[in-house]
Amino acid sequence: MAEARPRVAIVGAGFGGLACARKLDGEPLDVVLLDQHNYHLFTPLLYQVATGLLNPSDIAYPLRTIFRHSPNVRFRQATVTRVDLASKLVRLDASPPLSYDYLVLATGSTDNYFGNQEVARVSLGLKSLEDATRLRNHVLTCLERADAEPDPEARRALLTFVVVGGGPTGVESSGALIELMEIVAGKDYHQISRAEIQVVLVEGTDRVLNAFSVRLGRYAQRVLMKRGVAVRTGALVKSANGHSVTLSDGTAIACATIIWSAGVRPSDPVGEAPLPRFRNARIEVDPWMRIPGAPGAFAIGDAASPRVGDRELPMLSPPAMQAGRYVARTIVDAVRGLQGEREPFHYVDKGTMATVGRNAGVTHLPGGLEFTGFLGWLTWLFVHIYYLIGFRNRISALGSWAWDYVRHDRPIRIILASSAAPKRV
Amino acid sequence: MAEARPRVAIVGAGFGGLACARKLDGEPLDVVLLDQHNYHLFTPLLYQVATGLLNPSDIAYPLRTIFRHSPNVRFRQATVTRVDLASKLVRLDASPPLSYDYLVLATGSTDNYFGNQEVARVSLGLKSLEDATRLRNHVLTCLERADAEPDPEARRALLTFVVVGGGPTGVESSGALIELMEIVAGKDYHQISRAEIQVVLVEGTDRVLNAFSVRLGRYAQRVLMKRGVAVRTGALVKSANGHSVTLSDGTAIACATIIWSAGVRPSDPVGEAPLPRFRNARIEVDPWMRIPGAPGAFAIGDAASPRVGDRELPMLSPPAMQAGRYVARTIVDAVRGLQGEREPFHYVDKGTMATVGRNAGVTHLPGGLEFTGFLGWLTWLFVHIYYLIGFRNRISALGSWAWDYVRHDRPIRIILASSAAPKRV
Repeated sequence: MAEARPRVAIVGAGFGGLACARKLDGEPLDVVLLDQHNYHLFTPLLYQVATGLLNPSDIAYPLRTIFRHSPNVRFRQATVTRVDLASKLVRLDASPPLSYDYLVLATGSTDNYFGNQEVARVSLGLKSLEDATRLRNHVLTCLERADAEPDPEARRALLTFVVVGGGPTGVESSGALIELMEIVAGKDYHQISRAEIQVVLVEGTDRVLNAFSVRLGRYAQRVLMKRGVAVRTGALVKSANGHSVTLSDGTAIACATIIWSAGVRPSDPVGEAPLPRFRNARIEVDPWMRIPGAPGAFAIGDAASPRVGDRELPMLSPPAMQAGRYVARTIVDAVRGLQGEREPFHYVDKGTMATVGRNAGVTHLPGGLEFTGFLGWLTWLFVHIYYLIGFRNRISALGSWAWDYVRHDRPIRIILASSAAPKRV
Repeated sequence: MAEARPRVAIVGAGFGGLACARKLDGEPLDVVLLDQHNYHLFTPLLYQVATGLLNPSDIAYPLRTIFRHSPNVRFRQATVTRVDLASKLVRLDASPPLSYDYLVLATGSTDNYFGNQEVARVSLGLKSLEDATRLRNHVLTCLERADAEPDPEARRALLTFVVVGGGPTGVESSGALIELMEIVAGKDYHQISRAEIQVVLVEGTDRVLNAFSVRLGRYAQRVLMKRGVAVRTGALVKSANGHSVTLSDGTAIACATIIWSAGVRPSDPVGEAPLPRFRNARIEVDPWMRIPGAPGAFAIGDAASPRVGDRELPMLSPPAMQAGRYVARTIVDAVRGLQGEREPFHYVDKGTMATVGRNAGVTHLPGGLEFTGFLGWLTWLFVHIYYLIGFRNRISALGSWAWDYVRHDRPIRIILASSAAPKRV
């Protein structure tokens, strides 16, 4: 039955790929959704897993469950090794290649260390659930070690956490870290005083939250500093090793933890195909999100952008989701034989937001409306609950947030070190 | 201040060690509680983490939080490499040895494969949180592989789960597995039919739940079989490899999963010291739980037992907890200079219970009162909620159970493969 239907291969089940697959649910198409993980990950809350507030399962939703009742969308957990645009094949690591009629490339992005291997080696990223649990283990292990360490220099390094990059991820991570430290220093860890702990946020430009207005950026910086984060603007990371990080102005900071949120680069399995790309390696698609010279192939999200004026679409979830739905409609129109060129993709900015921590958020709405503080935080909270997938995950996250808010707690402070791959299979 | 106080080193923060430390809280002693993990683990619910019902953090409680307000109990995360009973030293992996005045050895047990290296290599245990998450990853990965596997033989093996050992852990694990399969087969995994899935419970004696009455054992077996578990009594595992397991009667079962719950052996770091031991290597302590010939040293829980008549104490949490509190009282009496030999340790059996799954449990109370079915299950549920540490963990577990009960769901079906150790430190 499905044999006769055109096949859509969606590579990547992030915000873009998932939105596309949902829009294609129930259409006369054979949709195969591929991802290396068996869950959709709500990446904006990774830092809350890393700081012991949420469980990994709160922000990860099994993809098979989402499409449980779908007659035409199949999920497959697989690693895509290469996409062959000319022969319309998706090559997989452990099974025969998958042919497609339509391709939606939605492979997202990974951390960008701008070629600095040493920084990459010693830094902890925050792009995957593995990253988040690894960071949680790392931070808690630093506290354990510091608690038992008599040498003041070594203690100081173990208790210094450097966050690189003052975008939303960096601001939210450093805000969450300082809150975690406030909760545990002198309490869970009797030997550690709050004064020994440093959280440093390093940002290359002259202010944090660059993508927001000057007013919102200043507000966020003020709140972070008032809560104890040392904000170093106008500073880049020049080098780093296992014991310290050196900034562009020559300052060396002894630290055991470097959290990287200074940049991402697109990640796609298209290989050597000579595609037009932006300077940051993002595929430059046409205004209809089509990959030039690749019939039936689209690319969306962090992996690709059309040229919008002289810029690109931002690497955020809303443009990815909107493009996913747009491309889905294009494919449906095509298989239904609807004629006529569609309108080019148009991104509708519905606003951006970030939280600095308890009672403090920044929200920017289109038209210039902005708010900060408690209202900004509340907006952030409800928007994130709304976009979390699954009733249970929403209840669980809301419950955790309520607990945290009332009890000033970060309850999930377990070091679960291996968790490990399957033994065989 | 603490310098002048006698030091108690408690090795292991399981049920026994934790009960002992809690009893010593506030006493004029310097108590150091050591464990390789930073949490107390509620092991009886590990199988629920492995089958996607509970989060790891629901059954793991940070030890530092338990003793946050304690003036005299310190927790230290450390691996004890050896205990030197003669010189009264606890040797640690990464820091100087710790001297003690009193020692409480509460190091528990590990899986016992009775010397069969090959079986040990290919089996999955269920003794630690790492084990549980590894098993969850493994089972879900088997389902993913089977869904994509065209060869019927290979599918069959991927969908056969062999549980070895018909004690409470084996019964609860196989009951939980069959429920998980019922939920996902044909739903999350459209290509897998329920008929392709096998859960086999292998037990060496002639019935499951040997430690319970014949009636309770028969009931559990009947429920398991009605729900689809193939129960093979009177069969031992002779050999196993990555593809199959061979039983003592010669039957070979092709399978990709072997879950080991057929026995444990005590695990202690006493090294070569010539201590009296039972045949299963448990230390034979005197009736006051003292290690013979080792002044100030006690051993409790799975690691040790006095000879009770011609038997030992059962390797369960209640005797461990009772002995932990008993030993704590002994130590307090000693430092307070109270004279007189104490009564020998007396284990009060408060009953045992196990659950076979939804609405089906068995409970044995002292005096011979027994119940099965819904009542047995309800008793099991409330006793386990009661003994879970932490209000939040209780709420979270109750919430998950309610969700599971009403929705017939096992929501935490994420394969979180690495989770990984800290990068450096």
